[in-house]
Parts: sequence; structure tokens; C-alpha cells
Amino acid sequence: MMKRYRNGEIWDFELENRFASNPPVILGLDGGTTSTVCVCIPILPFSAPLPDPLPFLARAVAGCSNHNSVGELAARETLEQVMADALLKSGSTRSAVRAVCLAVSGVNHQTDERRILKWLRDIFPRRVELFVQNDAVAALASGTMGKLHGCVLIAGTGTIAYGFTEDGREARAAGAGPVLGDWGSGYGIAAQALTAVIRAYDGRGGQTILTSSILQFLGLSSPDELIGWTYSDSSWARIANLVPVVVSCAESGDEVANQILQDSVEELALSVKAVVHKLGLCGEDGNAPFPLVMVGGVLEANKSWDIGKEVVNCISRDYPGALPIVPKVEPAVGAALLAWNFLMKESQ
Amino acid sequence: MMKRYRNGEIWDFELENRFASNPPVILGLDGGTTSTVCVCIPILPFSAPLPDPLPFLARAVAGCSNHNSVGELAARETLEQVMADALLKSGSTRSAVRAVCLAVSGVNHQTDERRILKWLRDIFPRRVELFVQNDAVAALASGTMGKLHGCVLIAGTGTIAYGFTEDGREARAAGAGPVLGDWGSGYGIAAQALTAVIRAYDGRGGQTILTSSILQFLGLSSPDELIGWTYSDSSWARIANLVPVVVSCAESGDEVANQILQDSVEELALSVKAVVHKLGLCGEDGNAPFPLVMVGGVLEANKSWDIGKEVVNCISRDYPGALPIVPKVEPAVGAALLAWNFLMKESQ
Repeated sequence: MMKRYRNGEIWDFELENRFASNPPVILGLDGGTTSTVCVCIPILPFSAPLPDPLPFLARAVAGCSNHNSVGELAARETLEQVMADALLKSGSTRSAVRAVCLAVSGVNHQTDERRILKWLRDIFPRRVELFVQNDAVAALASGTMGKLHGCVLIAGTGTIAYGFTEDGREARAAGAGPVLGDWGSGYGIAAQALTAVIRAYDGRGGQTILTSSILQFLGLSSPDELIGWTYSDSSWARIANLVPVVVSCAESGDEVANQILQDSVEELALSVKAVVHKLGLCGEDGNAPFPLVMVGGVLEANKSWDIGKEVVNCISRDYPGALPIVPKVEPAVGAALLAWNFLMKESQ
Repeated sequence: MMKRYRNGEIWDFELENRFASNPPVILGLDGGTTSTVCVCIPILPFSAPLPDPLPFLARAVAGCSNHNSVGELAARETLEQVMADALLKSGSTRSAVRAVCLAVSGVNHQTDERRILKWLRDIFPRRVELFVQNDAVAALASGTMGKLHGCVLIAGTGTIAYGFTEDGREARAAGAGPVLGDWGSGYGIAAQALTAVIRAYDGRGGQTILTSSILQFLGLSSPDELIGWTYSDSSWARIANLVPVVVSCAESGDEVANQILQDSVEELALSVKAVVHKLGLCGEDGNAPFPLVMVGGVLEANKSWDIGKEVVNCISRDYPGALPIVPKVEPAVGAALLAWNFLMKESQ
């Protein structure tokens, strides 16, 4: 049963008459640690290719919906609010919703998936199709316009490679966090750079312009102070913020910074290669084409030293069929397209 | 002014008559994160070599005195209590104390040192000599019987190399924590091993018996579960507990585990070499003898794969004058001997 008046006035707008009849829609959600995005798109015909640009009804943004960070109650309320906002903005109501796809980080087990499905089930009528996916899957779909085929490489603060075959097998590599060796990530690059500064300072490593660049960026006066700086707050994102400094040092010709980025390229490429190899995405002759979706700040924000380009080159040497794609739509749209793709498969 | 009745009854025992006259003593303290040890030794004559075994009056143990962990008030009370216990056990009082040396981890700046000196100053009469040192310095002294000369290598959960020349110059390497590249430490070894398990699992690395050994040791059934295990509590000591598992895998001939230990050996040796080089401990010809004090579980707890021995071999190839010493006394005694050595220098 749909609960029409749950959580105070969130759904009150549905009582107004102007929504008497509205065309069917899909909601796609990207629930991240810093914000939650919900998009509402119309149901597109399954018989034709997707229009470009994609028709788009509304977009709403709310805060964190990671239940590990804010608790289950707050997470659920944030999700409900952002979906209500998107429906209101698109001039629609829950009765028009055909499917919802929620992509969240940290969905690794079926228990996570079932718990979140139950939250959604409380909000929507029974006939609404509900999907819960790992955020990497929505990132892949944002590059393939909903089709689960190929491999996505995400490299932001963390990194993960996630792939699907056309017949539904899946595999992943990395995405285990810094302790467990996600060395190619933004955190990994920055931690290597900080380490290089300490090693140059205490005599274990060669001199590098990373020292002056990082100290200036952080407003510190001595490498000594980096110890206190990391101990004071070891959040991965805070450390990963140093990536642009490392890139500009490498662009200035610093050999230590250059080597750190080169190592990161090999690590990131290795994750993709492991997934491609495991799934046989490259076909029997090793040359079959497959989509390679590239997502995240580490792969984007480069000038002359282009980490993303080097990663693609490194992968292509082993797998020339890799077709690099930089998504034109955001992950929430990827989630919506994923739901659309599921509906299409069911209709066939 | 000495406060005789501070903190309730801590010092009440001093009021009894049986302590009417007692010989001068030194207190040495080792303030660690898990426990605090205080030893009381008699003042030994400066004119003769130290007797072996060392005369020893009393030893007392208390909980954590790290003010970052338990707060300043609790830390001070723990320190005061453990010193009172040691004096009571040795049949002595504060009026017999000539010097106190407190060795604590995390004393890196003069501000830390001054704050802790002030705590001690409130407890003892003005004529008592007070010393506050980084715990690595007391570890060095525990091997050199109080003399500040040579290099100490500590490798437990963390790692640091710390050295002194005979004319008082000092240098250190590593000791900056895991983010900043203390790779040879117990934490470093264990994190590499966990990473190797994840990489073998997702196809980025070769198979290793670390997988079955570590999963069995932790009571887990799949490498997947290691992600949750590390996220649930990323305390460095908890992870470093895996070192013996890595050592036994290497002893069984596992190539991945062997390489991790080999890398750790090179990292640990590099820290020592950096200090020796910076201070010129090896003399102008590179062959001068110097004490190399080896401390910590990573260097001790080995069977056929002996990390400590390999580290010494690696250092000796560059610096044949390195004289490895495994301390026979604990760091608290090292602290007491340090105070004794300072007193001796002052008397000369």
C-alpha cells in the first residue's frame, strides 16, 4: 500500500487537482556521500533509439542519503523528499511513476539491496518497478545510455572498475578503500605525493618540487607539519584534494610527481584489464569492441598531463577494442536509463 | 613548591616515619598508548662502568598516559600515581628523587615538551632534574645503557629511525604514520598482505596462500568481507596483528608474502641508512662503528624468516660499522639511564 501522507506534508502537493492525468515517468537517483540527486524523465518508446538530447522533466538535489553517515531515518527522509521535489517540479505525482532506480555507493550485498528496496516499497504503489544498484553500475549506464555492457572506471577520491557482459555476468576490481590498495585513486596519488615530501625531507627519497608546492597549497612552512596535518583529519577526500598540485608538478617536469602519476595510470589500467579479462569483454581474439566508460575527477581534471588519456592508451595496448566514453549525462540520469532499460527488457 | 598532598592520598605514604633517610634515586617512565611503566633505580657512581645486571629498586605499571587518548587530567593523574607506586615499592619518597625522565610518544615539538615538564614540576621539589623525551630516544638509551650515540630502529605497529651523534646532533626518518609512507612497519606489512589478498581475488595480482591464512585467522569466509572488516575499525594496531600470519606464509614459501617482507626489510633499512648518512655516524671512511639498537615486535617475533636479521644485513652492506644491539632492559629503564647520563654529564 502506498502511504499518501507519510512524513508530514512531503506528498501533500499530490492532492491538488492539476495532476489529474499525467504521462508515465521514471525516477533516477544518485545517492552519494555529499549529496543526493533525483531526475525525472518521461517513459521513452522502446521501439526507437534514445533521442539526443534526452527529454528531461525535472532535477532535484538534497543532502547526504548515506545511512552510514546520517542514520537510517534521516537517509530515508532525504530520499523521500528529493523524489517528491523532482515529481513536483515535473508536474507529476507518484501515480505516474512506472519505475525508480536508486544508485548508491556501498551496495555490495543483497542484504543492503533488500533493506533499501523495502524503504522504496513503503513509498510507492506496488505496481512501480524498483531497482537498487551500486553507484558504479549507474556510472556505467550514464556512459552507455542505460545498456549494461562494457566496463566503467571510476577514479575520484577512491577508484573502482566494474563491468558487465551482454548476457548479465558482472565483475569488479579495486573499490576496497585505501587500506586495501586502491593505489590509483585520487587519495592514492595524494598520499604518495605526501610520502614523497616526507621521504625527501628525512633523506629517504630524492628532492622534488612537490615539497614547496604542497606546503604552499596547504599553508604550512615545514614538511614536519604534514604529520600533524594528516593526523588532524585523515578524511580521504581532504587528502585527495592535493591531486591537482601533483599534476601541475608533473607538468612542470618534476620526475617524482611524474612517476606517481605514471604508477597511478598503471594501477587504474590494471583494474580495468582485470575486469575485461575476467568477463572476456574483449572476445576470443582479444580485439572485440566494448564500451569503456571513464568517470571521476582524476580522469577529467588534467591539462597537458592527461591521466585519463594515458589510462586509455595503456588499456588499448592489451585490448584494442576498448571504446572510451566520457558520459554526457550525470549518474542520476544513468540510473533512470538503467530503469528504462530494465522496463524495455521486460516488455520484450 | 612541592605539593605534598595533591590528588587526595597519592602521596600519603610519604608521611610515615620509616622513610626518614633514604639514598638518592632516579625515576624512568615509559608512557605508551596502552600502558605506562615507571622504574626506580638508585643513583649509580659516575666513576665506574654500569654494573650488570643493573641494580633495580622497583617497577610499577599503570594504564594509558597519552593525553591525546585519555585527556590531560587523567594522563597527569596516571603519571603521578605510577610514580608514587614505584617510590612506595622501593621504600623511598619524592625527597630522595634526584631526576625524572619521562619518555612519551608524540613528543615532537618544544611545546609538547614544555607542557609535560610543567606537569612534573608541580609534583617534585625544584632541585629535582626533569627530562622529557620522545619514546624513540629512551628506546635508543635502553640499548646503549643511557648513552645518546648511534641509531635506534623501532618497528612495531609503526616505525621510526632516530639517531644521535656523540656531540649531540640528532636526526630521524619515518615515524610519520601510515598515510605518509611508514611502509616497513607492522601496519605496512599487514596492509600490503591484505591488499595482496584483494588483488588476487579481483584478478589484479597472483594467487597467494595469504588468502586462506588471513581469512582463517580473522574467521572470515571470503575476501569480499575484508572490506567490511577494515572499514569497521581501521585502528593500525588491529591491522598490524596480522604480521605473524604474513611471516608464516613467507616461511611456507609463499612468494607474495616473501616479497612483502623483503620490501619491508628494504624500507626499514632505508630509514636507518638515511639517519646514519645524515649524521655521518659511519665516519668519513664509511666504516666507523656505531650502535644500532633494534626494538619492536616486527624485528623480534620471527622464526626462520627473521626480519630483524635481514634488516641488519641490508644496513651492514652499506655501513659495516653497524653494531646491532637488542636491548636487555625495557624503555622505562632506558629513560632512567638517560637521566643518569644527563646527571653524569652535568657533574663533569
